[in-house]
Amino acid sequence: MVESRLVMKFGGTSVADIERIRRVGRLVEAEVARGHRVAVVVSAMAGKTNEMVAWTDAAGRAAPGLPESDDEYDVVVASGEQVTAGLLAMVLRNMGVPAKSFLGWQIPIITDDAHGKARIEDIPPENLTALMDAGTVAVIAGFQGRTPEGRITTLGRGGSDTSAVAIAAAVGAIRCDIYTDVDGVYTTDPRIEKRAKRLARISYEEMLEMASLGAKVLQTRSVELAMAHRVPVRVLSSFTEPGEASADTGTIVCDEEEIMEKRIVSGVAFSRDEAKVTLFGLPDTPGVSSRIFSALAEAHVNVDMIVQSKARTADHANMAFTVGRRDADRALEIMREVQKDIGFEEVAVDADVAKVSVVGVGMRSHVGVAQSMFKALAEKGVNIQVISTSEIKISVLIDAAYTELAVRALHAAYGLDQV
Amino acid sequence: MVESRLVMKFGGTSVADIERIRRVGRLVEAEVARGHRVAVVVSAMAGKTNEMVAWTDAAGRAAPGLPESDDEYDVVVASGEQVTAGLLAMVLRNMGVPAKSFLGWQIPIITDDAHGKARIEDIPPENLTALMDAGTVAVIAGFQGRTPEGRITTLGRGGSDTSAVAIAAAVGAIRCDIYTDVDGVYTTDPRIEKRAKRLARISYEEMLEMASLGAKVLQTRSVELAMAHRVPVRVLSSFTEPGEASADTGTIVCDEEEIMEKRIVSGVAFSRDEAKVTLFGLPDTPGVSSRIFSALAEAHVNVDMIVQSKARTADHANMAFTVGRRDADRALEIMREVQKDIGFEEVAVDADVAKVSVVGVGMRSHVGVAQSMFKALAEKGVNIQVISTSEIKISVLIDAAYTELAVRALHAAYGLDQV
Repeated sequence: MVESRLVMKFGGTSVADIERIRRVGRLVEAEVARGHRVAVVVSAMAGKTNEMVAWTDAAGRAAPGLPESDDEYDVVVASGEQVTAGLLAMVLRNMGVPAKSFLGWQIPIITDDAHGKARIEDIPPENLTALMDAGTVAVIAGFQGRTPEGRITTLGRGGSDTSAVAIAAAVGAIRCDIYTDVDGVYTTDPRIEKRAKRLARISYEEMLEMASLGAKVLQTRSVELAMAHRVPVRVLSSFTEPGEASADTGTIVCDEEEIMEKRIVSGVAFSRDEAKVTLFGLPDTPGVSSRIFSALAEAHVNVDMIVQSKARTADHANMAFTVGRRDADRALEIMREVQKDIGFEEVAVDADVAKVSVVGVGMRSHVGVAQSMFKALAEKGVNIQVISTSEIKISVLIDAAYTELAVRALHAAYGLDQV
Repeated sequence: MVESRLVMKFGGTSVADIERIRRVGRLVEAEVARGHRVAVVVSAMAGKTNEMVAWTDAAGRAAPGLPESDDEYDVVVASGEQVTAGLLAMVLRNMGVPAKSFLGWQIPIITDDAHGKARIEDIPPENLTALMDAGTVAVIAGFQGRTPEGRITTLGRGGSDTSAVAIAAAVGAIRCDIYTDVDGVYTTDPRIEKRAKRLARISYEEMLEMASLGAKVLQTRSVELAMAHRVPVRVLSSFTEPGEASADTGTIVCDEEEIMEKRIVSGVAFSRDEAKVTLFGLPDTPGVSSRIFSALAEAHVNVDMIVQSKARTADHANMAFTVGRRDADRALEIMREVQKDIGFEEVAVDADVAKVSVVGVGMRSHVGVAQSMFKALAEKGVNIQVISTSEIKISVLIDAAYTELAVRALHAAYGLDQV
């Protein structure tokens, strides 16, 4: 018998109806049968959160000047996970597995009061560990908590992943298993490159880069939390057969030290949610960049990649940067405002771009990674518009039409089909 | 300015969608404008409770030998009122009326642990009164509470009426206004007797008799609670225009002492939910009745009216009693079992009966009420099968076909069309 604590998490599509909740029940039962002391974190049934968000919109939550209605938004929306938690507890009992539901306020999961996007501050583990160690499955409503004053909060979209990791950390679980609609983290998107391979393990740092670069398997916050508390997270398919999950199933997100065979590059990620803003003929004087990026920051427009180059005349420069595609119009508007002040010649926005990135902790100790990237892309005639790098990642901005070509070329160049 | 505390309660059809919740908001706003310090109790949106009950059934709540799943049933079903409370609080704020939602656990409404049909044990009023007196409307999820251990409970169908009255008692409200789909309590069902009149006032005792006799305006438990705490309850239509509710609107259920002009009979009630069980040729020996009614009680079959008469032979008797129509088959089965033991000749069940009753506190001090009842029915050729009486009520069991005729005859006989 394993006799260790395990947290399992199921998203909205895994609990969309009673038949699927029963399937979740069987997956839980199998882990209990292996001797795990289990806590399960559940999301709202698929579609229910959207239904409730629509009601809150109709009730006027979005009305200007009424931010405080967000606390009532949380009251409404948190009811979705409550329903699923109660139903799964019933289903488990009917299978002969002792179970008890917990809402955020009952554990309690203490958060700050940033309603709609609250951050977990504390989870006293005693209620859960006492129950789990007595052989009862704790069925926990994800996505929710309460303030120290006893008001309901929610953690924002995808918050159930965060709930699960935070609970795993609080109860000292050996692992947090996140059941999702994919069977793990791949070297790249298998819809683009058929030879993409599932990674058995990936480090927290790599996963963070992958997640923020557009591989939407795990919520970034949950990975940050897992890294901070050194909780191993496993991503696996909710279509795994009960009892069949083994050490080889899914992808384990863990500390770099726990990955025996280090790869130079672990994966190729891409994102089409970018837009490029180019400023032509900027006066080449100190303080110009600062004024541009201050204006964007004040408007809460996030800037990602930045490149600056000399223009045709010696005292002028060109600058290009990327923003989220949703923010493109806003960014253009802001640039037109600062144009009068700064006096550059022209501004252009191009939404027809993609960011392609290679990610790998091995880069830290290997040279030539960027060079092979540029070479592979050049061989396929892919023009690089902007480059940005971090310690474990290199990103390039290219014409969106070349996305698939670039992804496949890089996947082959780093030998990822042989992982 | 009135400056007194008022509790308002709205049922599921009054909050069925956002448009109706806005209407409720305007009704609340009007009472606030009058200077009331308001608490509002809301039910789940119409249909939502049924949806959730269906899920819990599918999840196996009804499975034999699993009564403890009722605590999870409460977790699921209580989410309905939570949604409405949050939405109404938002709507009120958007109208410029400060509001804050409260769930059962937040006030808290402390109940026993009889999940699915819990009884309220205590409501510490401080949280509510502090808020109300500071000018904020407390929007309270009805139908729910929590055990002293912090588990969610529900009060059973119609429990929101009970929540509202209990909260009115706890905060010392001047009145509890129950908004419903009728505009008050009538001398009889207006669908049967067009000349039925709305009563301006009715005593708790009369209302209890009316409610238990089939006039389904208020839940019996809520009336009992109002009587125990002397909380005046007003029944009024949710289609009342905002600000138009006056002293004359609806029906006030109150202490007998507060009704100036006492009527002998206040109303005529009827119920078709009865079945008559007749036992022929019972041995006329002591202990026979006891054995019959013990057997029924053990099977949780409630017996209402009972009559016993001599049969054609001197040492035998006939007996008739009524049970709820749903229990008729069960009662017949039980009678067939005890027949072997007791040895009566025959048992017959007749579901084609109706109970018609006249109710009025004035009966206590007036003689001849029963006599006028029997006379009025005889004049219309209505045969009386069983009679039962209490201090303020006389009920007769008749052939169901005569129900409307009997109701109209009695309504006229006691001059109720002139109330």
